[in-house]
Amino acid sequence: MPGPLDGYRVVDVTQMLSGPMATMILGDQGADVIKVEPPKSGDLTRAFSKSGITGTFAMINRSKRSVAINLKTAAGVKLIKQLVSQADVFVQNFRPGTVERMGIDEEALRAIKPDLIYVSISGFGESGPYIKKRVYDPVIQALSGLTDVQRDRDTGKPHMMRLVIPDKVTSLTAAQAITAALLSRERTGKGQHVRLAMLDAVVSFVWPEGMADQTIVKNNPQNSSDPEQRPELIFETTDGFITTGAMSNKEWDGLVRALEQPQWLEDPRFQTPADRMKHASHRLELMSQVIRTRSTDEWISRLDAEEVPCAPVLRRDEVRHNEQVIANNLIVESDHPHVGRTRMPRPPARFTETPAELRLHAPALGEHTESVLKELGITPAELEQLEADDII
Amino acid sequence: MPGPLDGYRVVDVTQMLSGPMATMILGDQGADVIKVEPPKSGDLTRAFSKSGITGTFAMINRSKRSVAINLKTAAGVKLIKQLVSQADVFVQNFRPGTVERMGIDEEALRAIKPDLIYVSISGFGESGPYIKKRVYDPVIQALSGLTDVQRDRDTGKPHMMRLVIPDKVTSLTAAQAITAALLSRERTGKGQHVRLAMLDAVVSFVWPEGMADQTIVKNNPQNSSDPEQRPELIFETTDGFITTGAMSNKEWDGLVRALEQPQWLEDPRFQTPADRMKHASHRLELMSQVIRTRSTDEWISRLDAEEVPCAPVLRRDEVRHNEQVIANNLIVESDHPHVGRTRMPRPPARFTETPAELRLHAPALGEHTESVLKELGITPAELEQLEADDII
Repeated sequence: MPGPLDGYRVVDVTQMLSGPMATMILGDQGADVIKVEPPKSGDLTRAFSKSGITGTFAMINRSKRSVAINLKTAAGVKLIKQLVSQADVFVQNFRPGTVERMGIDEEALRAIKPDLIYVSISGFGESGPYIKKRVYDPVIQALSGLTDVQRDRDTGKPHMMRLVIPDKVTSLTAAQAITAALLSRERTGKGQHVRLAMLDAVVSFVWPEGMADQTIVKNNPQNSSDPEQRPELIFETTDGFITTGAMSNKEWDGLVRALEQPQWLEDPRFQTPADRMKHASHRLELMSQVIRTRSTDEWISRLDAEEVPCAPVLRRDEVRHNEQVIANNLIVESDHPHVGRTRMPRPPARFTETPAELRLHAPALGEHTESVLKELGITPAELEQLEADDII
Repeated sequence: MPGPLDGYRVVDVTQMLSGPMATMILGDQGADVIKVEPPKSGDLTRAFSKSGITGTFAMINRSKRSVAINLKTAAGVKLIKQLVSQADVFVQNFRPGTVERMGIDEEALRAIKPDLIYVSISGFGESGPYIKKRVYDPVIQALSGLTDVQRDRDTGKPHMMRLVIPDKVTSLTAAQAITAALLSRERTGKGQHVRLAMLDAVVSFVWPEGMADQTIVKNNPQNSSDPEQRPELIFETTDGFITTGAMSNKEWDGLVRALEQPQWLEDPRFQTPADRMKHASHRLELMSQVIRTRSTDEWISRLDAEEVPCAPVLRRDEVRHNEQVIANNLIVESDHPHVGRTRMPRPPARFTETPAELRLHAPALGEHTESVLKELGITPAELEQLEADDII
């Protein structure tokens, strides 16, 4: 069944993670995503594996076709322009100034395709003191406050979040913006330039509660960046860890029953949500002492029975075996022609009429060069010449 | 200037964070978002502040109008149906089964508005063992592997990421899916039901590199969930912390010059990227010893001069003063009629033709009840009666 983006073509010259993951979302939803890669090396991330396809690559480049074109040649640029003439969206994440040098800037491509959605993903934007700096995930984490959020309570040392959250938040933000620009074009007939800086996407993502005390200026306290003092809701059991917590009185009563500590109901420190918040450190320490006496399974069934929010803390290789993950048919397996069996999550949003799904396996470098260029009307003889000239 | 979603109306009965932040994105882009709240209490998060507007609320409910309607009454449900009859999107995040009891399930609303985009955001989905469980952020963090990613290297203890990443990732995913469903409807004329579970959104977000070693089945090692052993790229200076790192030989040479440690160029452990990766712990320890001898500003200018990726680790209240954040005009200030001056990031994606922007301040509870209901053709006498009956 066709997806919601069926019929749109996206020419994607991005590499690494943020650009490719954005166009994966569009491809899963039915867009014809053409991944343009340098002929010899391909996407930089291919080098991390002998097969050219790592676990990460297999996921974020699914639902795309790969075309190998040397963009550093005039003939290569001519091919890109032919592709763009039949496309709706062009996505690039080169450093500022690069597309102008290559001759694939907005003006050059809009001359070919007037209603193009031209998308530029950058680290820092197009102007300002940082635009020449190289962008790695830790740099955006450090600048956006993510590492400060994770600052250690005792030592005061900031910590990284050990996922490339900046890249992936940028991907989700870009995919929505591209879809909105297509929607606007559908009604106005006009294309446009959509620009997104990782720094902007991540600060916007952190801000709602991460910077809440800076939002209303008159509330701004002196100590707004102190580390969160409240201990986190993770408790060790005899065989692992669980999370649990009680907000309302009803949940607290349930928790007390599940933990068999009726004396806590009489404790003046724990009478109201405000009391319990005030004495959180002491309360969580008491809970820890009890929870460490039984197994994860025992606690989860007791807490569930009392309708107290709770969950086992899963190791990464346990997630796919979790009963709710299985009930949701979240992890799909399929065979990849080069790397064999793969497993990865299906697209999370489910559409009743226009399903998103894994449409194509992550391509080998240039797997679709011939078929895509033939669709453009390039003849077999021309293809042979382009290959001999190291253009494709 | 009209945004890309100009002309669409969204009726949003969600509360808390994931639903409201999704519709904030649509409102910034020009959709007319009508936030429907219970008349007395409003959105649950209003209770966290005397003014009814916390810092978080001020951001995620901007660009919306608030209408207070009691959905537990037949007259309230009738009003919702009148609103939906003129809307394009309806978004709800009640627990499974609730909308059926209230009479605002898909079937009921599609009878009024056949091409409606009906959106259901849930914690776990509509079937499976967890669907009756309450969903809090720590529960999804524990189940999705986020806490395992953050597991302590020395103690093995899992840790939370101290932002409500599950809610916010769900928001971004939902906003894209809703936009895609509108795009599809624009061409097919058909509405549909879009369902999104937080668990699914977050596992999909974690997976690309967080679960990469589980993606290609034949590569799956025994120890795939061991904590990341490599020390993180955060270094203490005389007056704070910086992040820096070198991937290529060129960057490593620059780093060695910036740190004035020419003997490292001769060190057999640091000759290639693979060598430096193998000896990462020792190398980072040596770097720490040097970096702790000078100030953050000194190191950043030395590293910048050598084109080595680097950044100061900013405290949260320093982010808005960073020179690139300022150059990007990222943080906008405005006056809110009830809480005074506010500051928050503008929408991160910038559209040349259909700008996204802060369109309205976060509303007081029911601020637009009268004006919105008048647009529906409800007379002043009817309004008075509805108010007398505690319906609005």
